[in-house]
Amino acid sequence: MPAANRLTGIYTPNLVAYDDRGNVNEAETRRYIDWLIERGVHGLYPNGSTGEFTRFTPEERRRITTIIAEQARGRVPILAGAAEANVRETLKACEYYADLGIRAVAIVAPFYYKLGPESVYAYFAEIGRNTPIDVTLYNIPLFASPIDVPTVQRLADNFERIIAIKDSSGDIPHMIRMIDAVRPNRPEFSFLTGWDAALMPLLLVGADGGTNATSGVVPEITRKLYDLTTSYQIDEARKIQYDIVRLFDTMIYSAEFPEGFRAAVSLRGFQMGRGRQPLSDKQQTDITLLRRTLQCLLSEHGFVDEPVGGCPVGSADVTSTTEVASIVQTVVAELQKPGMI
Amino acid sequence: MPAANRLTGIYTPNLVAYDDRGNVNEAETRRYIDWLIERGVHGLYPNGSTGEFTRFTPEERRRITTIIAEQARGRVPILAGAAEANVRETLKACEYYADLGIRAVAIVAPFYYKLGPESVYAYFAEIGRNTPIDVTLYNIPLFASPIDVPTVQRLADNFERIIAIKDSSGDIPHMIRMIDAVRPNRPEFSFLTGWDAALMPLLLVGADGGTNATSGVVPEITRKLYDLTTSYQIDEARKIQYDIVRLFDTMIYSAEFPEGFRAAVSLRGFQMGRGRQPLSDKQQTDITLLRRTLQCLLSEHGFVDEPVGGCPVGSADVTSTTEVASIVQTVVAELQKPGMI
Amino acid sequence: MPAANRLTGIYTPNLVAYDDRGNVNEAETRRYIDWLIERGVHGLYPNGSTGEFTRFTPEERRRITTIIAEQARGRVPILAGAAEANVRETLKACEYYADLGIRAVAIVAPFYYKLGPESVYAYFAEIGRNTPIDVTLYNIPLFASPIDVPTVQRLADNFERIIAIKDSSGDIPHMIRMIDAVRPNRPEFSFLTGWDAALMPLLLVGADGGTNATSGVVPEITRKLYDLTTSYQIDEARKIQYDIVRLFDTMIYSAEFPEGFRAAVSLRGFQMGRGRQPLSDKQQTDITLLRRTLQCLLSEHGFVDEPVGGCPVGSADVTSTTEVASIVQTVVAELQKPGMI
Amino acid sequence: MPAANRLTGIYTPNLVAYDDRGNVNEAETRRYIDWLIERGVHGLYPNGSTGEFTRFTPEERRRITTIIAEQARGRVPILAGAAEANVRETLKACEYYADLGIRAVAIVAPFYYKLGPESVYAYFAEIGRNTPIDVTLYNIPLFASPIDVPTVQRLADNFERIIAIKDSSGDIPHMIRMIDAVRPNRPEFSFLTGWDAALMPLLLVGADGGTNATSGVVPEITRKLYDLTTSYQIDEARKIQYDIVRLFDTMIYSAEFPEGFRAAVSLRGFQMGRGRQPLSDKQQTDITLLRRTLQCLLSEHGFVDEPVGGCPVGSADVTSTTEVASIVQTVVAELQKPGMI
Repeated sequence: MPAANRLTGIYTPNLVAYDDRGNVNEAETRRYIDWLIERGVHGLYPNGSTGEFTRFTPEERRRITTIIAEQARGRVPILAGAAEANVRETLKACEYYADLGIRAVAIVAPFYYKLGPESVYAYFAEIGRNTPIDVTLYNIPLFASPIDVPTVQRLADNFERIIAIKDSSGDIPHMIRMIDAVRPNRPEFSFLTGWDAALMPLLLVGADGGTNATSGVVPEITRKLYDLTTSYQIDEARKIQYDIVRLFDTMIYSAEFPEGFRAAVSLRGFQMGRGRQPLSDKQQTDITLLRRTLQCLLSEHGFVDEPVGGCPVGSADVTSTTEVASIVQTVVAELQKPGMI
Repeated sequence: MPAANRLTGIYTPNLVAYDDRGNVNEAETRRYIDWLIERGVHGLYPNGSTGEFTRFTPEERRRITTIIAEQARGRVPILAGAAEANVRETLKACEYYADLGIRAVAIVAPFYYKLGPESVYAYFAEIGRNTPIDVTLYNIPLFASPIDVPTVQRLADNFERIIAIKDSSGDIPHMIRMIDAVRPNRPEFSFLTGWDAALMPLLLVGADGGTNATSGVVPEITRKLYDLTTSYQIDEARKIQYDIVRLFDTMIYSAEFPEGFRAAVSLRGFQMGRGRQPLSDKQQTDITLLRRTLQCLLSEHGFVDEPVGGCPVGSADVTSTTEVASIVQTVVAELQKPGMI
Repeated sequence: MPAANRLTGIYTPNLVAYDDRGNVNEAETRRYIDWLIERGVHGLYPNGSTGEFTRFTPEERRRITTIIAEQARGRVPILAGAAEANVRETLKACEYYADLGIRAVAIVAPFYYKLGPESVYAYFAEIGRNTPIDVTLYNIPLFASPIDVPTVQRLADNFERIIAIKDSSGDIPHMIRMIDAVRPNRPEFSFLTGWDAALMPLLLVGADGGTNATSGVVPEITRKLYDLTTSYQIDEARKIQYDIVRLFDTMIYSAEFPEGFRAAVSLRGFQMGRGRQPLSDKQQTDITLLRRTLQCLLSEHGFVDEPVGGCPVGSADVTSTTEVASIVQTVVAELQKPGMI
Repeated sequence: MPAANRLTGIYTPNLVAYDDRGNVNEAETRRYIDWLIERGVHGLYPNGSTGEFTRFTPEERRRITTIIAEQARGRVPILAGAAEANVRETLKACEYYADLGIRAVAIVAPFYYKLGPESVYAYFAEIGRNTPIDVTLYNIPLFASPIDVPTVQRLADNFERIIAIKDSSGDIPHMIRMIDAVRPNRPEFSFLTGWDAALMPLLLVGADGGTNATSGVVPEITRKLYDLTTSYQIDEARKIQYDIVRLFDTMIYSAEFPEGFRAAVSLRGFQMGRGRQPLSDKQQTDITLLRRTLQCLLSEHGFVDEPVGGCPVGSADVTSTTEVASIVQTVVAELQKPGMI
């Protein structure tokens, strides 16, 4: 595979807009895709965790990818989530996406059941042997069976159709160990991270890019962070990374994932509709408060106007950061309990 | 609801037999269902975790329940797993199962994403408001978002169609707290446990029954444990509980769940076929070894002949127990990391 | 060892009273010990987790045990916590306690560092080879390196001076596995539980007794639960077990351990003084509220008068249980997480 | 406090050498301290986790710090671990170390009991109010109660004697959140990391230095990594970081901590003696194997000769890395789990 064709840069795990009846809003989703491409994301990633892939039927997942492929018209490559109920169904999805002409699929390790390394290997091996399209492994130990370093190495060594891994653990030594284990035999293998809060340091230790949910909200900033970091403008990149952490934390810890991201995208001018996971009254109130915080964060960068009544400044900012930090502690701990780091 | 109609006793979370092409083997599954009913299980539970519900398509899940309802012909009540991709799809499944005439559905809390209590409440509340069939909550914090005690209480207080909870945490104080919180307002609410290794003590502290995977392998023994325990024959029950722990541990920790259970059922004379999760060569060898251990355990109770070459006795038994114990420590710890206990 | 000398029954992990300067209040501690013995506890257990052993100097730990041995004057046996900084120091403490004439020591697995099974075995093996006094292993995986089942079995098989285990995991299948592994070779080995919320079911599956913190607060009730359970008065025992769960949860989850127990003991009429772990202003307010809740729980059993203003009744009780349940969920999760990584 | 006096650079959490009877080997410890200083470490850190502080008596901890202070003779600053059984004892140690003229103390959050944020705050607040010497908070959630971001911020805002935090979580977004919360009010506050496997990226996101156990083994390399990273020689630094991960993983995951580090230091020419935690026969054999692996890693950098028989090359290296990775997965998971409940 030519190096030019490697997966690098920022792939947006795009959200899907809904209409009033809870169906996919095609027109608004297409408008959103155009907007993302125009703001510089390197690729698109439908059917990711941010895209709520588990909440769609198999037919809807195919339809969403088709819409995005049509709309992108080859302007950027597409990485499509292809995990289905079992290997046979997943391979059927791979065939469908191959026919659509997309760049590669991403397949999350089996979830619900927590499988050990041998089973995870056997699952991806059967896919690696039979896939008609390049495959990206997707490791998200928070939600699915972990793919450990020796398993990544065995799969990379044995199946040339497996060309990349997207890792959402956010664990930097883990990334170093993967790269160290895989690159000697597979120098063109790609390493992408899904953990925005550590994008800069992960790129600096050797990752090739990211599938970062913040790029669906502030594609300009995530792209800028990528460019500054890969050109070693460390002090400038660090400043942006801190901003991304603040924004990411606010979106991910103040509401049930990915509702915070949906709220933020609506501030950028899109009608996202109500998500498929019902929200309690209390949660809907929380999201109204979150919108205000997000509007302040986005207005600092000139993306939107300040909310009516203005935003806190100076030390107030610090307080706000601290409040979020308190939530972060609790929620991160909660989320990472099953983690593999 | 008349007390006579409460969910009590042992519901078997039945496995599904596969044919050579990996499809549902209807004839063998029907034969297995008859066998279970004849051996005294109080009810059947298709589309549970033991039944690998996530590895089937939505159409297959409906078909499996239909087969089992047809075969049971009202001899025992059926509790059918009805969780689908989102609330709308789950409610469609509830309607389908209501039309089939089954007793109740069981719905696992949302999985993949780990949702907090407010979201879990909102999810089940929307189901509770709209379901045409009685609903059993299914709490399995190992695999899905936990349903905590206050959420169980809120749901029980507000939705009369929610009539029971199946709890697979295995945590006894947690069961006590649930019963203590729910029974004052809902004296007929049922509490079932899915954790065979603590069936006797859970019944003694107040649970009404269980959905226990061992009852799919040794229905005679699980039923006997239930009868001895509920009639307070403590010393006799304890002895059976110890046997169940040995058997359960061997099946659950020596192979990827539920392969150990499949291996054991095949020893009882059923052609279960190969499961849908691929196994590595090493895993297939492990299962061959496991079959031998299981054959020895089952032969002690006269269910099958000893394997050729015989079984270890005396101190050898202890060693074998210890080896399993060592596996148990590791795997239980691993499995319970995300737990909610 | 004669069976008559086995460790059975309820050993109270007694608190220590402090004076105004934060030193041990000998007179009040002696008065408390008398009170416990008069109310029927089978034994005493200084230097346990409830007794805050880590917050004393080595000299203070020896002094506390001496006071209690003097005061007990042989009326009940004493099990003394003997864990010190390393094996050598621990063995010196064992010698000291042997000279005091106490029944046995309890030694927690090494803590701070989380050691694996080989290291835990090596640690207790060196103690088992050299101790002049009977040793009880102390497994509390929440706070110290876990002692897994194969390790308990190896130690029991190899060292006759190791005569018991106190297990505070609260995990019932784990207790079954331990008993199943150890009893064939060591029928007189004792199994004690430190988890009050599951005392009844643990006794019913085969445990010999408990070292239960509630017995330091309501020795009458814990003793009654033990008597009812061991005589198989199941329905009566269950009711008491539910009461103990409510009381235990309130004490353990409404304040930093063991402050809730200190507050409750002070309601029984003892001047416990301020603990050695500083409390914030907010925590001191919380304990004032907790005292009121505890006073209501204790007044239901006639141990103390109702607080001025009275206690909630009926549905209010349920609410209170639910509120505690909510705290329980959060705090248990908090306690069981590995940290913040 | 003048910026020139801030804690920055690499502080070595030094091991302690033992003599044949298990006592501190003063002469060899002094020789080791000289060797470290000559190789460029910026400071020394006795009574850290690497230095096995919990396995010494209070008197031994004071003695060790005195030896090191005497030997350093002001050539480098000393950060001394001062945690004792309770606040009063800890403050006495602070006074002792202040009299010794060392730069600052490091105090780990309370351990054994897992305390919540309010208690952790109250503990350090009482220390902050009364300490006669600068205090570094020590956050190591693997072993002790976590110090969360809002607590760090409250302590930094309120107590000027608290001047730094050593964080061993290895979590990079956590470091970013701490710096973001604390620096606005305390620009001179220092942030040190104890997680060698992420030293480079942590420095790049803003940390000031580290207390890194690898610097006790290869002070030349850890110092070089620090210098390359802080001068933004990214490609060169990354290569060293990868080497450090390999070495760190080998030492930390192939033997019970800190035995791997002791084995490595002995390869550098010091008689470290047997540690205080007993090792089983199997563990002693494992360390012999580990020594060989370490000797190969160290010989690659010219620090020692290759072992007799030579070292693996090329693909063998990869294998070796993978084997360690496999151990890492298991052991990290093991370390991070809450226990066996």
